[in-house]
Amino acid sequence: EEDEEENFIKNNYIARTLLNEPELPPITWLNWYKEVNWPQATLLCLEPLVALYGLFTTSFMWQTIIFTIIWYFLTGFGITAGYHRLFSHRSYEAKLPLRYFLLILGAGSVQGSAQWWSRGHRAHHRYTDTDLDPYSAHKGIFYSHIGWLLFKPRRKPGLVDISDLTNDKCIQWQHRNYISLAFFMAFVFPTLVCGLGWNDYRGGYFFAGVLRLVFVHHSTFCVNSLAHYLGDAPYDDRRTPRDHFFTALVTLGEGYHNFHHEFPSDYRNALKWFQYDPTKYLIEFFKLIKLANNLKEFPKNEIRKGRYTMAHKELNRFGQTIIWPKDNLNLPIITFEEYQELTKKNDNRLLILIAGFIHDVSHFIDSHPGGRTIIKSYIGKDATVAFYGGIHDHNTAAHNILAMMRVAICKYGGEVEYIKKRLGHIQTPTPIFA
Amino acid sequence: EEDEEENFIKNNYIARTLLNEPELPPITWLNWYKEVNWPQATLLCLEPLVALYGLFTTSFMWQTIIFTIIWYFLTGFGITAGYHRLFSHRSYEAKLPLRYFLLILGAGSVQGSAQWWSRGHRAHHRYTDTDLDPYSAHKGIFYSHIGWLLFKPRRKPGLVDISDLTNDKCIQWQHRNYISLAFFMAFVFPTLVCGLGWNDYRGGYFFAGVLRLVFVHHSTFCVNSLAHYLGDAPYDDRRTPRDHFFTALVTLGEGYHNFHHEFPSDYRNALKWFQYDPTKYLIEFFKLIKLANNLKEFPKNEIRKGRYTMAHKELNRFGQTIIWPKDNLNLPIITFEEYQELTKKNDNRLLILIAGFIHDVSHFIDSHPGGRTIIKSYIGKDATVAFYGGIHDHNTAAHNILAMMRVAICKYGGEVEYIKKRLGHIQTPTPIFA
Ligand code: HEM
Ligand code: HEM
Ligand SMILES: [Fe+2]
Ligand SMILES: [Fe+2]
Ligand SMILES: [Fe+2]
Ligand SMILES: [Fe+2]
Repeated sequence: EEDEEENFIKNNYIARTLLNEPELPPITWLNWYKEVNWPQATLLCLEPLVALYGLFTTSFMWQTIIFTIIWYFLTGFGITAGYHRLFSHRSYEAKLPLRYFLLILGAGSVQGSAQWWSRGHRAHHRYTDTDLDPYSAHKGIFYSHIGWLLFKPRRKPGLVDISDLTNDKCIQWQHRNYISLAFFMAFVFPTLVCGLGWNDYRGGYFFAGVLRLVFVHHSTFCVNSLAHYLGDAPYDDRRTPRDHFFTALVTLGEGYHNFHHEFPSDYRNALKWFQYDPTKYLIEFFKLIKLANNLKEFPKNEIRKGRYTMAHKELNRFGQTIIWPKDNLNLPIITFEEYQELTKKNDNRLLILIAGFIHDVSHFIDSHPGGRTIIKSYIGKDATVAFYGGIHDHNTAAHNILAMMRVAICKYGGEVEYIKKRLGHIQTPTPIFA
Repeated sequence: EEDEEENFIKNNYIARTLLNEPELPPITWLNWYKEVNWPQATLLCLEPLVALYGLFTTSFMWQTIIFTIIWYFLTGFGITAGYHRLFSHRSYEAKLPLRYFLLILGAGSVQGSAQWWSRGHRAHHRYTDTDLDPYSAHKGIFYSHIGWLLFKPRRKPGLVDISDLTNDKCIQWQHRNYISLAFFMAFVFPTLVCGLGWNDYRGGYFFAGVLRLVFVHHSTFCVNSLAHYLGDAPYDDRRTPRDHFFTALVTLGEGYHNFHHEFPSDYRNALKWFQYDPTKYLIEFFKLIKLANNLKEFPKNEIRKGRYTMAHKELNRFGQTIIWPKDNLNLPIITFEEYQELTKKNDNRLLILIAGFIHDVSHFIDSHPGGRTIIKSYIGKDATVAFYGGIHDHNTAAHNILAMMRVAICKYGGEVEYIKKRLGHIQTPTPIFA
């Protein structure tokens, strides 16, 4: 057994790595301030405060409000259509202009460079729910939402291959210029648009800049927190990812996360027309205007297998809440004559023979839809033919109810005199020496 | 075989009866006027015309409109809670005053006496979809809706037991006085209420009397027509009854007809809170005011069995739309060395050994979420450990996709030199005479 354990660890990258690589000590009330990632924590805690201050001190201009919403969607799509579906998952191919466009917008979401983001995200997919997953759902909803950014990670995220990204010029350009790009797109650009456009520099900064950033941040964070807690698992339930409309609504369509983890390089997150996945439509639009191609889809057949398997699991769980007929092997076997004898005893047990089984209908007879009398007249007789259409061709429910009342098996299945006679004949040993 | 056929007919009441009892000839363009049930046909065809005439010649009073709706519900409940669930199905017990109340209201729906109605309805349940069912759905939606009333029935409906009804004083009283009761409740009473109440005799007659009757009639008829065509079969699909919200809406809750045929003596037609079954609530109200008791319910466990079985059927149908891996028995068996040889040939077939099977990944490799290179490096080797967590612990979808690409079985399951050596040793025959 120890051998087996050892063998497993040797052959399992995750087990091996967790065992051999160092881990920082847990965060406690004594050491927490040393473990905080101060630059990130400051940014993430300050931005909602600045946004609140802006909300209370700045007057609203409808143009700014509209631009804020647009800018929320655009920088958000930079993450969902760009960082996530294009760069992390290669779920489609994009022409150069589109790649730059998405990288620049993505920078405006201030979530690190596409290379850094994808490196972590690939580890999240490859090591989902383990300690090599940088935002493992098993560490709690707070940690997977924002905690992993506020504190220094306890471990290096698991090994992943990002050679495609390190060899990509656009990605490298964005990686090198990330800080200035992010600062410009997140704050300078929206301030300028609102300022030069309708002279609302202040609104541009506070609303389209900071407030919008708060929403974009927590929207993306929800994919790591909510999407691993809320909803159901229609494709696979081995791990935590879940599908939910609400998560989709607040994440530009990334909320069908059970599907996404099962089929990560599919450019879609939602398959059904009634599910909300604007990022999918955007990618289809990119294709329409010839900026994207080779949109990847997992084969329908394999997607159905997931649905089928999960539906089967659920149905089996439902089946286990049902009481099924008792095991026939434990029923006593009695002869037809013994059965008749039993029904003559005056002990209020009403026995009826149907299809080889003897049933105790004492508790059922009064609720029989066909009435008490008709069953009563068959007590002690073989009611098989009557039950199967001789008198009434019973529905499926009747057969189910009947099976619940089995108390014995009737030898030879019933009153079959001619079979018994034949058997008797055969069983009489033919004398060898007459 | 002929013997079997004969035996079946002898032992099946329906088959026997259909064979032995006379049937009227089919209705044709030549004989139809002789086959019409003139009194019923006249009533049923005239009433919508009279209602229309009334609609165009009578002014509306809101009191009359309200009373018409109330009278529609009351006389309708006379049928659903009275004729149907109480008298035909004995799904609850009712005190004398309630029995009279329901019988009087039911008469106002002009659908025959409760005894006549229940006799036909019991035959409908016992012989559903056969020619002994007076309004068999297999005779078409027109026939089951109203045709069976317009023409003389082609056969006597199948035998049923109505001794409980013929022994019931209330039922017999209503049966004897049916014509006058019906006339009074359908036309005189609503005319008087509206006339004496707010001096709208004309509206009372045309709206609360005739128009309301048209609606009550076709509402009941829909239970025999629509409810056997429209909707799904969540409890059993051996026969035509179906569940549908729309049918329920137009029939005071009798539209969950698949449930009802499966569990006919249940006082409910609908189980779920979101389903529309006002008749059920009315019966529960009767119980509350102590006019009804012993409300019958089929055991939840047996109801679940129906749902379970049908869900299983549907899931199996879904499973049959899926392409599953090929039968392993037909795969060729090759040795590990042969496998390696094959991968060296330059015929663009990329073969990879995982878990004892050799897979052709030529068409898959470019869409591998983990990239082309990593798979490429395992061509011609045993990738079992890598695929099962040595490098990446693949998700369920990956296992499903993998199984679709099997092209051969690897002898001994893979490169297991020490097993091969051992087997070689054992297989060397020990000489018997040395
Ligand atoms: C002892 C086990 C029995 C069970 C569990 C049972 C159950 C049922 C059930 C659930 C129904 C309503 C559903 C349907 O119409 O198929 C029914 C109806 C009926 N049963 Fe049975 N039954 C039993 C025995 C019998 C026997 C032995 C007879 C006749 C000899 C019989 C005669 C009828 C008739 C005539 C009806 C139709 C009632 C009507 O719709 O008016 N039943 N039974
Ligand atoms: C030949 C059959 C193979 C199939 C059908 C297959 C299928 C898949 C699928 C569906 C995924 C995405 C889902 C998931 O993350 O589990 C995936 C990911 C991955 N596969 Fe495979 N795979 C195969 C072979 C291999 C082999 C032989 C290796 C390594 C030696 C490998 C390494 C990986 C890695 C590292 C990932 C994670 C990619 C990421 O999330 O960045 N695969 N594979
Ligand atoms: Fe995730
Ligand atoms: Fe992802
Ligand atoms: Fe029916
Ligand atoms: Fe019924």
